[in-house]
Amino acid sequence: MIADSFPVDLVSWDYATSLSRSLAAMIRASRFEPDIVIAIGRGGYVPARIVCDRLLMTDLTSIKIEHWGTAAHKFDQARIRFPLSVNVEGKDILVIDDITDTGETLMTAREYLALSSPSEIRTGVLQHKTSSAHQPDYYAELLSDWKWIVYPWALHEDLIGFLEKVLSTRPASAGDLVETLRLRFMMNPDMDEVILALNDMVSLGMVARQRDLFYALGSTQSPGPE
Amino acid sequence: MIADSFPVDLVSWDYATSLSRSLAAMIRASRFEPDIVIAIGRGGYVPARIVCDRLLMTDLTSIKIEHWGTAAHKFDQARIRFPLSVNVEGKDILVIDDITDTGETLMTAREYLALSSPSEIRTGVLQHKTSSAHQPDYYAELLSDWKWIVYPWALHEDLIGFLEKVLSTRPASAGDLVETLRLRFMMNPDMDEVILALNDMVSLGMVARQRDLFYALGSTQSPGPE
Repeated sequence: MIADSFPVDLVSWDYATSLSRSLAAMIRASRFEPDIVIAIGRGGYVPARIVCDRLLMTDLTSIKIEHWGTAAHKFDQARIRFPLSVNVEGKDILVIDDITDTGETLMTAREYLALSSPSEIRTGVLQHKTSSAHQPDYYAELLSDWKWIVYPWALHEDLIGFLEKVLSTRPASAGDLVETLRLRFMMNPDMDEVILALNDMVSLGMVARQRDLFYALGSTQSPGPE
Repeated sequence: MIADSFPVDLVSWDYATSLSRSLAAMIRASRFEPDIVIAIGRGGYVPARIVCDRLLMTDLTSIKIEHWGTAAHKFDQARIRFPLSVNVEGKDILVIDDITDTGETLMTAREYLALSSPSEIRTGVLQHKTSSAHQPDYYAELLSDWKWIVYPWALHEDLIGFLEKVLSTRPASAGDLVETLRLRFMMNPDMDEVILALNDMVSLGMVARQRDLFYALGSTQSPGPE
């Protein structure tokens, strides 16, 4: 079940890149020298690229893991959507993702990659939630209080998700939406980003605009035609 | 041939993410709606992730293209190192990379991906050099004056390359190296980053340190043992 109100952390680019560099430093310090880095798509793309830079690694590839079930649900199901295209038999693999929330993604990745007989699989994330059933080998930060993390490379789509949630209950103006995001989710997105998300929602037919008010299409609480 | 001195642009995270967002906006404005985004590894990982966010696309995968020949050489050879793992037959593909320098990477990607019979292939980069033999379908910025671009996700490894170049001619202190990078390459890296790169070069056995001086190992101009 998703609560109506929970804390959301909008991670800045500065902080996300600094976490990525810390993660690389921890891997370096452990003396693990992977042959290849595998980014979990899509969340692991940016961290994995930075980790490769810091570890001076050129072999970077990706797999995509897809989730089934409601976002933020604790026991969602994960499955491989785009497989590995590289032979990793006998290789030391470093798997990188953004976060361990339920741990389902990394567990699925580990089981899947083990089928290719690598020599070793280690996993690393920027942020590891204590709620996760899987503990990654490396994490730059431990999150013990549950909150929803929005990475800067997912800001637009996540913002649309939150705006949709608010607009599903009542029509609102952009200013009202920003205030509601602040009150319900403790998040302070830039007004520019909110406007961009709202415009996209209008183009996508998710939302209609009437003067200053945005309302969800199909919502019983839309103001209706004039 | 690589000149001894040429302009280098250290792209900030702010600027790189803003170019990525502009690129996405151009793709959106063209009304091209790709079925899948393919990042060219490693340079396209970060831009592709941001483009996916802005275009609300979940299908992101990657291929890796490897270069042969000297870096910064105008006609280097490219080949597929990690292939595509997804069926793209009949699909509209958007290929994302960081830059078109010679254009070799995107040409190789286009030829390779065409073998999988997609419906359409379009290419997009953050920065397109007029020196490139291939013109991408989308680019956020046109670079008409040739310069070497260092993206923030490749800063560490590129910095090591430049420091190696300087140290191959003479031993130098960290301060002297920063000054030389400024004079020869018009670049102003943070001292922290330079120190980190030098430390890595020492660990990797590329460079040795004697008091304040760093010198290339194997260089005839090393100060030698005391």
